[in-house]
Amino acid sequence: MSERLIDLRSDTVTKPTPAMRAAMASAEVGDDVYGEDPTVNRLESRAAEIFGKEAAIFVPTGSMGNTIAARLHTEHGQEVICESQAHILDWEMAMVSAFAGCIPRTVVGDRGVLTWEKIKAAISPKIYYRAQTGLIWLENSHNIAGGIVTPLPVLEEIWAGAKAAGLPMHLDGARVFNAATALGNSVSELTSGFDTVMFCLSKGLGAPVGSMLVGSTKNIERARVFRKALGGGMRQAGIIAAAGLIALEEMPARLHEDHANARLLAEAVARCAGAEIDLSMVQTNIVIFKLKAGDAGAFVAGLKKSGVLCSAIGLQTVRLVTHFDVSREDCALAANQMERSLQALIAS
Amino acid sequence: MSERLIDLRSDTVTKPTPAMRAAMASAEVGDDVYGEDPTVNRLESRAAEIFGKEAAIFVPTGSMGNTIAARLHTEHGQEVICESQAHILDWEMAMVSAFAGCIPRTVVGDRGVLTWEKIKAAISPKIYYRAQTGLIWLENSHNIAGGIVTPLPVLEEIWAGAKAAGLPMHLDGARVFNAATALGNSVSELTSGFDTVMFCLSKGLGAPVGSMLVGSTKNIERARVFRKALGGGMRQAGIIAAAGLIALEEMPARLHEDHANARLLAEAVARCAGAEIDLSMVQTNIVIFKLKAGDAGAFVAGLKKSGVLCSAIGLQTVRLVTHFDVSREDCALAANQMERSLQALIAS
Amino acid sequence: MSERLIDLRSDTVTKPTPAMRAAMASAEVGDDVYGEDPTVNRLESRAAEIFGKEAAIFVPTGSMGNTIAARLHTEHGQEVICESQAHILDWEMAMVSAFAGCIPRTVVGDRGVLTWEKIKAAISPKIYYRAQTGLIWLENSHNIAGGIVTPLPVLEEIWAGAKAAGLPMHLDGARVFNAATALGNSVSELTSGFDTVMFCLSKGLGAPVGSMLVGSTKNIERARVFRKALGGGMRQAGIIAAAGLIALEEMPARLHEDHANARLLAEAVARCAGAEIDLSMVQTNIVIFKLKAGDAGAFVAGLKKSGVLCSAIGLQTVRLVTHFDVSREDCALAANQMERSLQALIAS
Amino acid sequence: MSERLIDLRSDTVTKPTPAMRAAMASAEVGDDVYGEDPTVNRLESRAAEIFGKEAAIFVPTGSMGNTIAARLHTEHGQEVICESQAHILDWEMAMVSAFAGCIPRTVVGDRGVLTWEKIKAAISPKIYYRAQTGLIWLENSHNIAGGIVTPLPVLEEIWAGAKAAGLPMHLDGARVFNAATALGNSVSELTSGFDTVMFCLSKGLGAPVGSMLVGSTKNIERARVFRKALGGGMRQAGIIAAAGLIALEEMPARLHEDHANARLLAEAVARCAGAEIDLSMVQTNIVIFKLKAGDAGAFVAGLKKSGVLCSAIGLQTVRLVTHFDVSREDCALAANQMERSLQALIAS
Repeated sequence: MSERLIDLRSDTVTKPTPAMRAAMASAEVGDDVYGEDPTVNRLESRAAEIFGKEAAIFVPTGSMGNTIAARLHTEHGQEVICESQAHILDWEMAMVSAFAGCIPRTVVGDRGVLTWEKIKAAISPKIYYRAQTGLIWLENSHNIAGGIVTPLPVLEEIWAGAKAAGLPMHLDGARVFNAATALGNSVSELTSGFDTVMFCLSKGLGAPVGSMLVGSTKNIERARVFRKALGGGMRQAGIIAAAGLIALEEMPARLHEDHANARLLAEAVARCAGAEIDLSMVQTNIVIFKLKAGDAGAFVAGLKKSGVLCSAIGLQTVRLVTHFDVSREDCALAANQMERSLQALIAS
Repeated sequence: MSERLIDLRSDTVTKPTPAMRAAMASAEVGDDVYGEDPTVNRLESRAAEIFGKEAAIFVPTGSMGNTIAARLHTEHGQEVICESQAHILDWEMAMVSAFAGCIPRTVVGDRGVLTWEKIKAAISPKIYYRAQTGLIWLENSHNIAGGIVTPLPVLEEIWAGAKAAGLPMHLDGARVFNAATALGNSVSELTSGFDTVMFCLSKGLGAPVGSMLVGSTKNIERARVFRKALGGGMRQAGIIAAAGLIALEEMPARLHEDHANARLLAEAVARCAGAEIDLSMVQTNIVIFKLKAGDAGAFVAGLKKSGVLCSAIGLQTVRLVTHFDVSREDCALAANQMERSLQALIAS
Repeated sequence: MSERLIDLRSDTVTKPTPAMRAAMASAEVGDDVYGEDPTVNRLESRAAEIFGKEAAIFVPTGSMGNTIAARLHTEHGQEVICESQAHILDWEMAMVSAFAGCIPRTVVGDRGVLTWEKIKAAISPKIYYRAQTGLIWLENSHNIAGGIVTPLPVLEEIWAGAKAAGLPMHLDGARVFNAATALGNSVSELTSGFDTVMFCLSKGLGAPVGSMLVGSTKNIERARVFRKALGGGMRQAGIIAAAGLIALEEMPARLHEDHANARLLAEAVARCAGAEIDLSMVQTNIVIFKLKAGDAGAFVAGLKKSGVLCSAIGLQTVRLVTHFDVSREDCALAANQMERSLQALIAS
Repeated sequence: MSERLIDLRSDTVTKPTPAMRAAMASAEVGDDVYGEDPTVNRLESRAAEIFGKEAAIFVPTGSMGNTIAARLHTEHGQEVICESQAHILDWEMAMVSAFAGCIPRTVVGDRGVLTWEKIKAAISPKIYYRAQTGLIWLENSHNIAGGIVTPLPVLEEIWAGAKAAGLPMHLDGARVFNAATALGNSVSELTSGFDTVMFCLSKGLGAPVGSMLVGSTKNIERARVFRKALGGGMRQAGIIAAAGLIALEEMPARLHEDHANARLLAEAVARCAGAEIDLSMVQTNIVIFKLKAGDAGAFVAGLKKSGVLCSAIGLQTVRLVTHFDVSREDCALAANQMERSLQALIAS
């Protein structure tokens, strides 16, 4: 068993690189509530540029960015159309309801992918005694579906439909750089039709803290109000923005390595009789498979003893996520341990 | 074409009977905010008695009763488990989110019927960074599913499960007297395991205005707070409660007539080549069928010209609801008109 | 002691007149959620006409009308400027915060009367990190201040200021007919500068249930959405609207009697050594006075034994409200009983 | 004129010390959502210890800490008693209403200081149709009142009263270390009777980002839920917690210097004919004075040209705040510039 744990639970566990630490130590800062932090300003300006939007705002977490977006585009008593396993539905503390006052109108996607046809059918009829649709919400890549990507042509049809219907669109792009990497598009191509996009500097990009919301100047100005309300108006935020700038500039280019590592793990699982996996669903840095026998919790606990951390996300479903803190060697080792565990499962 | 319209759009259109009008004209009243309206007090006490609960509260609408229940059992940021076509989800203005601050956690029932097994799988894992389940919500009979009833043994299993899980249960019983009539149970048998039950004095029971929420003394005392908050603290409410008392005492016994009329209509539809209908789903006073060709909106508009009102509830789906303002003769006439329209549809 | 209690607790205790009862018994009704109740439609149209506004909506209570207005003109996270003893602040269950999500920004009026100068100073500076003013809220007559009226010239200055500042204005006119009677203005004169006005058909006008919100067509259309949300979308509401029509047409003309009766009571109090009263503050149908000794609760309890009901609204403060269910004779009797009680107070 | 601006606008502008930067660069981190960040854990444990509470939680801002507290102790539709110029009322984006759903019940303190007698009178009577008091909220030192402190005996009487009334208490202790310094008490003495206390690591203590909420284990566990909801569940938060640890351990001991500098500034103002100041109100690091002539905005703009930044907080009211980024020399210089400006004011 390895001394060090190989942590495949999530890409949220990544630790800052030495370059990020150095940048944080020497960051030029100011009071960001007054708009006076030069490092935050630089990060916001670069994020807007990279996404081809007018403006951007730095937030402490992706959840806050998403909550701001939900509030920004809607009013209390409306509906937000989202996929049936969207992150906002399951992992963001019901804030779309508790803070934005909206009901999520869930639509079952094909492996997490929504189409305009499905979305259209979920728009409320225009009757005064019925809650009206306020926002269309997408997630790319789709986390719970397994890092699945929605390709550009599908998005383009949705953007056109939403525009014709007069409905705003938000992208939960926590891992939009992974989607862009997998699809061979730039993030600005993949997000041009969204009114706002949230993406994370932490997760795959490796910053210790922080996400961004990008959009029009008008939307980001309102976002500033809701960020202050939610308690995200940090003072000398340049310290963490400094790491975010490095994450944004340097880390997207290496995401293909995480995807290759995920494939390595997935192929190892596919070779085992003890598990079922659909390799066509391993599109980015997330691997989900199902045990043919036994309990996912016990499997995960057993693997932990061999130094590999992963997550049970269902009674028999296991999830692995690759990131820059696990090398190709780590993944090969982890694959090996998993194969052993899966064989033991069948044997028992 | 008949002079008078036969209104099968909903049982909400029923008008007060002469006895109800007389009772309203002579009702003894007082200030109900101070608990001094004797007619309201009598109605609340009878409702509690009939449902075998400690207490009851009179509310102007079923929506208010349901919103009170959602708020009563939960706190902001929780989840409410309900069926995927529950009335609260589609027709109550998102108040479960906008007022109670909760996300509806939807579960697809078998023709609207939930089981404990399905509900259990939708309960949140006990993790602090996940919204927790606050309430289990049932609807019996299930309106949008087509007046479908959930039988007592299914309920008993759910009650036992919810109790073991420590979760409160509310019944949207807008038409619980229809369910009781169809199942041959008393309403108190059908609701004994629920913490609160909302039922309507309007709709099938024919009162012009009003619904009730029944439950424990403690829950109904808190309900009084939320009723006042929502603006339901009416002053001399005894006027309308007087009609409600007649609705409650006299009208349940005649609901079987509405059910028989619904069957008459359904069987007429079943005879037509132009429509599809599953007769096993016509269990109470609601008939839903699908056109094999053409558009439901146009079909409904055509039927209106022949003096029959019904609703298009989907692109090709039509709904009829029977009630005491449409007699057996009205229904026979309506059936006749529908058969003609359906034949015309096929022919065209 | 009289057999019958003389109830001076509030004008909310009034019971429907025989004419109202007859009207309710024979009211033509329909389903008001579909806009099909002819009596409700007539009432709404007459209310709009009398107030010189485009539209009106019938609501079960004044609280609901006010809550709709608070929600209608604001968004969550804004401020509502109101007087420091406004009814919305103390007696409407915090719904301005719990449903509309706004902070009341309180301003101390001169005996309840706000001026533009005071309001202006309470408007938020336009800074993004400060909650913005969303609505200016007035109350005329002012209930807790003692039925105090704000005269037209004061209103006109406020209307002009609010318009220049681009801020909407709502009037809590629960007793605006009392204000109009006292000031010698029509209600349409007294309310022409408000975007919305809520007034009660119950209270001084004597209907058993119901209030109205009047305003522009656009505002009232949105109000219809929030009325449905709050659970005020009653079905055959024409029953109670029928009484409301009589209240609206016939009762304003007799309010001067209630005012004269209030003065009779106030002058009796003024003659007593045991109490302090400022007669200039008895402007409508409310009388507030302070005991020089003893406890208001005990005083009220004692008076109840002599057949007179009134309210303790402070440790030593007592409130009386006149209305059409207490005649001049009743008031003379009550005045007599109060004088005795006040003398006993001093003697003890 | 000095090259460098002397920034007396607020103690929020302080920049991290070299020691803080070094600590951030080398901080040991982990995923704090999973409770695995050792630096955050150390900071939370030290904060709890210093305040004599069971537990503590790290939050990105004081506003978030306060919002969590408001939500934690109340339910929607309640009232929060606070001083009429409390920071939560004016500068926290109405979140007590928009997120916690409560009305602030404001009480005018004597120069910002509340007493039990005043608080007691603001508690709601126990009537079901009245919003109930849910929380008592204090602020020490009181920011807008001018850094005024509430002494221990006054607090003790409030704690005893609140306890007897069964009401929870929260302290907005953004500057509680300043209060403790001024009063000669430890922070644990000054906060022992509060259920929760929020204090800032930024502001006077100089950390770039971060505040803490301390309280019982049970309260802090619930706080973790609301922190996640608000978007404060940062991942490798140890980076900023590392600076917070230094702020907490080393900076309180030097706050007396800021207080002495504030006095230096205040005494300079007191010598000028052009301004009014009450020296007895300069108790901590905040100085507020009133211009006898002219406009505060113009005064502040003029001073900026001489290299001194301060704030106009009223038409004629100016505020200065001292902190560790302005030395005694800076303050002497600023005092000098202000004296000149004030003389010019009188002369003009």
